Amino acid sequence: MAMVALSCVRGCSGVGVIRTALRLPHLRSVSGITVAQIDEEVAKLLELKARLGGDDGKHQFVLKTPKGTRDYNPKQMAIREKVFNTITRCFKRHGAETIDTPVFELKETLTGKYGEDSKLIYDLKDQGGELLSLRYDLTVPFARYLAMNKITNIKRYHIAKVYRRDNPAMTRGRYREFYQCDFDIAGQYDAMIPDAECLKIVHEILSELELGDFRIKVNDRRILDGMFAVCGVPDDKFRTICSTVDKLDKMPWEEVKKEMVNEKGLSEEAADQIGEYVSQHGGMDLAERLLLDPRMAQSKQACAGLSDIKLLFSYLQLFQVTDKVEFDLSLARGLDYYTGVIYEAVLTQAGVSNDAQNGAEESVSVGSVAGGGRYDGLVGMFDPKGRKVPCVGVSIGIERIFSIMEQKAEVSAEKIRTTEVQVLVASAQKNLLEERLRLVTELWNAGVKAEVMYKKNPKLLSQLQLCEETGIPLVAILGEQELKDGVVKLRVVATREEVDISRADLISEIKRRTSKA
Amino acid sequence: MAMVALSCVRGCSGVGVIRTALRLPHLRSVSGITVAQIDEEVAKLLELKARLGGDDGKHQFVLKTPKGTRDYNPKQMAIREKVFNTITRCFKRHGAETIDTPVFELKETLTGKYGEDSKLIYDLKDQGGELLSLRYDLTVPFARYLAMNKITNIKRYHIAKVYRRDNPAMTRGRYREFYQCDFDIAGQYDAMIPDAECLKIVHEILSELELGDFRIKVNDRRILDGMFAVCGVPDDKFRTICSTVDKLDKMPWEEVKKEMVNEKGLSEEAADQIGEYVSQHGGMDLAERLLLDPRMAQSKQACAGLSDIKLLFSYLQLFQVTDKVEFDLSLARGLDYYTGVIYEAVLTQAGVSNDAQNGAEESVSVGSVAGGGRYDGLVGMFDPKGRKVPCVGVSIGIERIFSIMEQKAEVSAEKIRTTEVQVLVASAQKNLLEERLRLVTELWNAGVKAEVMYKKNPKLLSQLQLCEETGIPLVAILGEQELKDGVVKLRVVATREEVDISRADLISEIKRRTSKA
Repeated sequence: MAMVALSCVRGCSGVGVIRTALRLPHLRSVSGITVAQIDEEVAKLLELKARLGGDDGKHQFVLKTPKGTRDYNPKQMAIREKVFNTITRCFKRHGAETIDTPVFELKETLTGKYGEDSKLIYDLKDQGGELLSLRYDLTVPFARYLAMNKITNIKRYHIAKVYRRDNPAMTRGRYREFYQCDFDIAGQYDAMIPDAECLKIVHEILSELELGDFRIKVNDRRILDGMFAVCGVPDDKFRTICSTVDKLDKMPWEEVKKEMVNEKGLSEEAADQIGEYVSQHGGMDLAERLLLDPRMAQSKQACAGLSDIKLLFSYLQLFQVTDKVEFDLSLARGLDYYTGVIYEAVLTQAGVSNDAQNGAEESVSVGSVAGGGRYDGLVGMFDPKGRKVPCVGVSIGIERIFSIMEQKAEVSAEKIRTTEVQVLVASAQKNLLEERLRLVTELWNAGVKAEVMYKKNPKLLSQLQLCEETGIPLVAILGEQELKDGVVKLRVVATREEVDISRADLISEIKRRTSKA
Repeated sequence: MAMVALSCVRGCSGVGVIRTALRLPHLRSVSGITVAQIDEEVAKLLELKARLGGDDGKHQFVLKTPKGTRDYNPKQMAIREKVFNTITRCFKRHGAETIDTPVFELKETLTGKYGEDSKLIYDLKDQGGELLSLRYDLTVPFARYLAMNKITNIKRYHIAKVYRRDNPAMTRGRYREFYQCDFDIAGQYDAMIPDAECLKIVHEILSELELGDFRIKVNDRRILDGMFAVCGVPDDKFRTICSTVDKLDKMPWEEVKKEMVNEKGLSEEAADQIGEYVSQHGGMDLAERLLLDPRMAQSKQACAGLSDIKLLFSYLQLFQVTDKVEFDLSLARGLDYYTGVIYEAVLTQAGVSNDAQNGAEESVSVGSVAGGGRYDGLVGMFDPKGRKVPCVGVSIGIERIFSIMEQKAEVSAEKIRTTEVQVLVASAQKNLLEERLRLVTELWNAGVKAEVMYKKNPKLLSQLQLCEETGIPLVAILGEQELKDGVVKLRVVATREEVDISRADLISEIKRRTSKA
């Protein structure tokens, strides 16, 4: 047992060593296998070893984050902050407030909201007291919040982590802990206006992030249900057939049909009829054509959905976003709570080519980056009297976007700074620590972002090197002569230009020089 | 059973009703009892009822957040954002990078780090796979991160939620889920320079937040241990006696002594000697005096600690923060991992008086709002070879600060806006929805924060009222005449002044007017 634990520790440090030695960015491929894939395999093996046990010696544990999770280092955080700022700015531009809810909810709050996905919910251990689960999305907590506070009108955004015990595919940006950026509009309003704004928001965010081309697929649960009805799907099979249709983005029609017929017991004829419909996509014209379809006309639901799609497209034209939006009858979306319009955004040209290193194009397959829809019944499930609050919203899946941004940063020449320090307070001679601390205090008190090295007598060269490494643009150098003259030598790191500034003018001079940049 | 569940639901909506009817802010007192206390009592009763059971009918569950947690509404979020911005600005001013770690860690990562507090850790249910626990603080995950990535030098901040199964006292800002704002400096540096910067940071943040007067107490684990040794405490009782000393801020000395002697089996003589020391507090002078104390001189550890306190105070003088810092021999801090300097900031004059409503002064007792210290051994506990990385850091306890800020906002005349909308696009007549959507699109595309009401034909009055309620400063009004003339009527909500602006100039005019504000 001790041997296993020991080699486990070795293997563990080994991963770091391999990564460091290869100096490969996260998703670059080495003869077909990516480093991230290797990491995943190694993680699986380490987990297996850990479960085989080990003795309780001091250092005999696996040094890792839990399966499907990761740390963000300062560089990744700088990218993440940029993405969040873009998204938050858009949400605020559209007048949203923000709220926050706890990371866990009463278990029963989540029960019966997610259909087949419920098995992926993380539960907390019963340590006495309430039974709790980690939130699976931000939508159900939002609905609970509305019902609990009797709120009937709100436009809010919520950016927070959610948890799913899914099979992680970290190469494709799929994690067990991941951020969702949600924007929702709750309230009884005229049809399709809030729904159209949600799509406008997705369009704005994906455009501004410059992730390459994208498409937003739109459908309506009522059209799907109506279609199932007129194709002869029994009522009690709507949801399960809907789940199968949802797989069309990952499986060819033939396999989807097989699942419908063989696993879910649908008649071949019904499946074929569904197949005809779900292959269609277009714009407002398709909605108009289907409204004239004699079979669809039998379903009131489908007709209501189709009329709303028409109305939606008319607003999308005014919002100038129809270039990217497509009415797609194969879009189903897995979650149970949707009642009307549903949508999903996919990147159609993801990834960054990396010719310089590999000679060949490569791209990350990232799939869906945003999704949402209308859920008019969810709040009512929480209200003691079942009062409904109609809601529509969208969720931006940040992890996949983040994978792309990270890869873009990796191949770009631009260096990412992880701090915002404007000036390093340095000394040219020994025994000037006190003077450095005195000066940096002046700068901090004036709101200047400043640092000193935590050494009594650092060499000037190592102080200048620190600036080069971390991108600090200015150095305020103190020496015996400067102190005597009541000046500070201000050095511009990029140009090596140096100029003596009187102590009294230093702060305004630093502010002047750094506000230009 | 059904009756219990039913009345439970009634009781639940009752809370909301009571709160709404009384229109009482969260912490205002009603003849001695605060609403928050009532809420807590009601929550306890509801939890009890919930645990008595109920049938599995549709709406028969308790509509609440888990014990010790809460939602943040938009107003609270606006305050929270302001506090976070102040803190983040300070951390960045001092050159810190930021990282993020998962909300849960492998259970074994947390094992053996928190001493007696370990029982408060939340575990996740074993659903197959790894055994996980929610993070208890940000320090242990930070140390794990350093060891895992072999980082020996970093200055980082981390603002995130942590989890403790403590007895919540929500009236005093004590929750089971709460934010910590941590700043830590890892690396082998010259003594006391990073330690002093941590105290400078606490001083800057508490000053800038304007929470009233505060004091930062400083001590050193080596001084405590040395003191225990020379007072005759057996080696194996250091930690447990230290935990008892830590209670001096909540209990009088007589009770602390009783616990030492009766519960922990210390001799009365040793306890009395400890009592003499822990009653002392002062500045650099006290450190100098104790260095001359013949008993203290017997302990090398204590002398090393006292010399460092002297050095620390000399740096604190240069940082201009000695006005608030006090060397206090009674400060112990509960956590096991501290090895050197420790500190804790307390507000000495908390709370906002509320004369207008109650005639009497009242204040929230908030206690400690920041704490930290040096932990040179923690990273080594994670390193397979036990390599040490010296660390020092501070954690700002945001919830208590937040309680005060919230209360301040409550009594202040200033209205808090929860959105940043600059202009509402309104219509003066019917049938102008399309024109409104066209105009708001122009504004959004130009980066203006704008809204429309989601109604086909909203009344002008209700559009203006919305602006009054939510603080939107401008209204862009469209009417038949304006459309004909190619202008928009721009109305200033505060002054009711109206002016026609040509469509081409509208965006620059809105930007000009809102940048002034």
